[in-house]
Amino acid sequence: MSASVSPLAPKSFVDMPAIRGLRMATASAGIKYKNRTDVLMMVFDQPAAVAGVFTRSKCPSAPVDFCRANLAAGVARGVVVNSGNANAFTGKKGAASTQLTGKSAAEALGCSESEIFLASTGVIGEPLDATKFSGVLGHMVETATGDTWLDAARAIMTTDTYPKVATRSAKIGGVTVTINGIAKGAGMIAPDMATMLSFVVTDADIAAPVLQSLLSKGVDASFNAITVDSDTSTSDTLLLFATGAAGVDGQAPIESETDAGLEDFKAALNDLLQDLALQVVRDGEGARKMVEITVTGAESDLAAKKIGLSIANSPLVKTAVAGEDANWGRIVMAVGKSGEMADRDRLAIWFGDVRVAVNGERDPDYSEAAASAVMKREDIAVKVDIGLGQGKFTVWTCDLTKEYITINGDYRS
Amino acid sequence: MSASVSPLAPKSFVDMPAIRGLRMATASAGIKYKNRTDVLMMVFDQPAAVAGVFTRSKCPSAPVDFCRANLAAGVARGVVVNSGNANAFTGKKGAASTQLTGKSAAEALGCSESEIFLASTGVIGEPLDATKFSGVLGHMVETATGDTWLDAARAIMTTDTYPKVATRSAKIGGVTVTINGIAKGAGMIAPDMATMLSFVVTDADIAAPVLQSLLSKGVDASFNAITVDSDTSTSDTLLLFATGAAGVDGQAPIESETDAGLEDFKAALNDLLQDLALQVVRDGEGARKMVEITVTGAESDLAAKKIGLSIANSPLVKTAVAGEDANWGRIVMAVGKSGEMADRDRLAIWFGDVRVAVNGERDPDYSEAAASAVMKREDIAVKVDIGLGQGKFTVWTCDLTKEYITINGDYRS
Repeated sequence: MSASVSPLAPKSFVDMPAIRGLRMATASAGIKYKNRTDVLMMVFDQPAAVAGVFTRSKCPSAPVDFCRANLAAGVARGVVVNSGNANAFTGKKGAASTQLTGKSAAEALGCSESEIFLASTGVIGEPLDATKFSGVLGHMVETATGDTWLDAARAIMTTDTYPKVATRSAKIGGVTVTINGIAKGAGMIAPDMATMLSFVVTDADIAAPVLQSLLSKGVDASFNAITVDSDTSTSDTLLLFATGAAGVDGQAPIESETDAGLEDFKAALNDLLQDLALQVVRDGEGARKMVEITVTGAESDLAAKKIGLSIANSPLVKTAVAGEDANWGRIVMAVGKSGEMADRDRLAIWFGDVRVAVNGERDPDYSEAAASAVMKREDIAVKVDIGLGQGKFTVWTCDLTKEYITINGDYRS
Repeated sequence: MSASVSPLAPKSFVDMPAIRGLRMATASAGIKYKNRTDVLMMVFDQPAAVAGVFTRSKCPSAPVDFCRANLAAGVARGVVVNSGNANAFTGKKGAASTQLTGKSAAEALGCSESEIFLASTGVIGEPLDATKFSGVLGHMVETATGDTWLDAARAIMTTDTYPKVATRSAKIGGVTVTINGIAKGAGMIAPDMATMLSFVVTDADIAAPVLQSLLSKGVDASFNAITVDSDTSTSDTLLLFATGAAGVDGQAPIESETDAGLEDFKAALNDLLQDLALQVVRDGEGARKMVEITVTGAESDLAAKKIGLSIANSPLVKTAVAGEDANWGRIVMAVGKSGEMADRDRLAIWFGDVRVAVNGERDPDYSEAAASAVMKREDIAVKVDIGLGQGKFTVWTCDLTKEYITINGDYRS
């Protein structure tokens, strides 16, 4: 947790309604930090359906292994999340630690270990002492309540400067359901499946395979469309739970993804996922500016995404944004290096509404003053038209400042 | 040109012998900089054989287009290089500019425009006024001499803090030949074919197709194995010329790459290319530390290279190096995100001679003091063994410091 909050942080937090069927508690287990909470427990008194997406890292953390194994059954009773230690690259000790934590949680909840989900975030490579959990989990289950979303989001923060929460409501067959989510992440953010950690819960009654499909599709335009520093974490975990409590209002269970009643929910879920993902970018380590990069006219949507991420990950583009320099030549460079088809002489580039380049050269009406005025904004939109096809995609990133170097030059110690 | 020289710069410059068959001159054309040279001309009084490799950017500069067109014939009489303006993304104006420069140079030399090679480096997107050359080229041809290598290297600098020169000698069939080279580059360095700009000349008598083959292979372990910031320039150009002047000493012309007489030359050329490439990394923008990353035990050499570059391009690895923090967990992260096969539980990592991780977890004998001592060095060797196969590759990079942000936050203005 940093002393100063990102200037891009939301000005206020939304009111988070309780989700029926879910209780939460936080605790201070002293894993790494002093004087703050570092454990979150989510309790489902009735079994909830669960879906998840995880890092594509070839070196995933022990909790990611643990969740993947349990996800097949699609049933959740409890979630334990800690900050301060990622339990990644911890070998057999890491697996033993997740087993012990799973066992403690299952005992406290009176359920099977296969119904427990775990996530850890923090330093890589330090063994995680799971005995620190055993003392607190029983008490957490007893005291968990439904209305602690901000506290929950705070307990899972590492270098984040603010807690990230979002809520939406949707109608399923005339019944109103709620979706709440939290996320953490500020650095090592280039999720290739999910962000660092995010947990989303709804009271809707939706079967696990349907949830999984919704989530796998939903990450594409949200968590998989953001980057802070191009570095993909070993711990990226996004879990979506459905308690089914809305069944008491008459919501008929959703068993198929093609159920027409699902449209509104799907839109609300996608909106919430994007909201959380953008909050992560807005808390990018050292970030002072938010950049939305829209690529159109590429050969395919995938090509547009690859070009967009090439721009979003370019240190030279990001330092130019930090310097409020309308250096569109670096956008050309990033398009050129992406490896995707591009025709230099068809390329057009906009900063905000100001077209700065067209037909392979500087716009004839180029105005340095107009372009520079856009760069002084806190939120900067960049548009690139490749001029070849119909592919389009939008990605989000932040600028690269000296503060990023300060934060990461000595994070471990 | 920066006021302060990189702390990683060579302590002294090597003596550069003249290359028979080559004359050089530099001039101040006032393209962008004040009070410094910004044009280099290389003159071959007899036609030289030429080979080249260029950026793989889909948005190459106008001079790259110009060189590619002329390379087919394999004959060079003159080279014009300018700094201060890349003549990239300048549309038809850019092509007109290269044509005018080619014409002026050809007239000054009394040769065909197809025997001229051009390179430009500097800002992207600004039209380059080629009339600035027309006044100086004639005089440069007249006054060119053979012993101005350091001046030549200085004239092509942009954000470089020192000129980059290297020389080697080799025996071909008992005759001693010389190879000299210069390079420029400090940022936008992740060559995917060559570096920003480098020009290498030998007096050996080697046919153009053989030169081309030697060069294309030689870049793999040199310019294509370095990265400063993962950004690939639109202007990357590496040209190799052979004047053939050693023929007067009895060197028989080399017409085939399999000529046994070529071995020593090949080794010397590869050594010189690597020397120049490492000088570019040592002048990486803001660099305070040089990092050599050797990956062994990968599935293939290509996989090892991809893993090596994933580590070398990671902002989190590079900021940890800047902070002298032995944060090997970030190496694990970078291996994991590379996309190449890796087995977390077989991975081993060394900083210098200190093994910090083995068998998927921290080394049992891990010593923070020993690892930290390595990180305090100016030159840091990182070794990663993947434990799967025989593939290996070495790449070089530098650290990421606040000075990089300062240099690039407002380079254009």
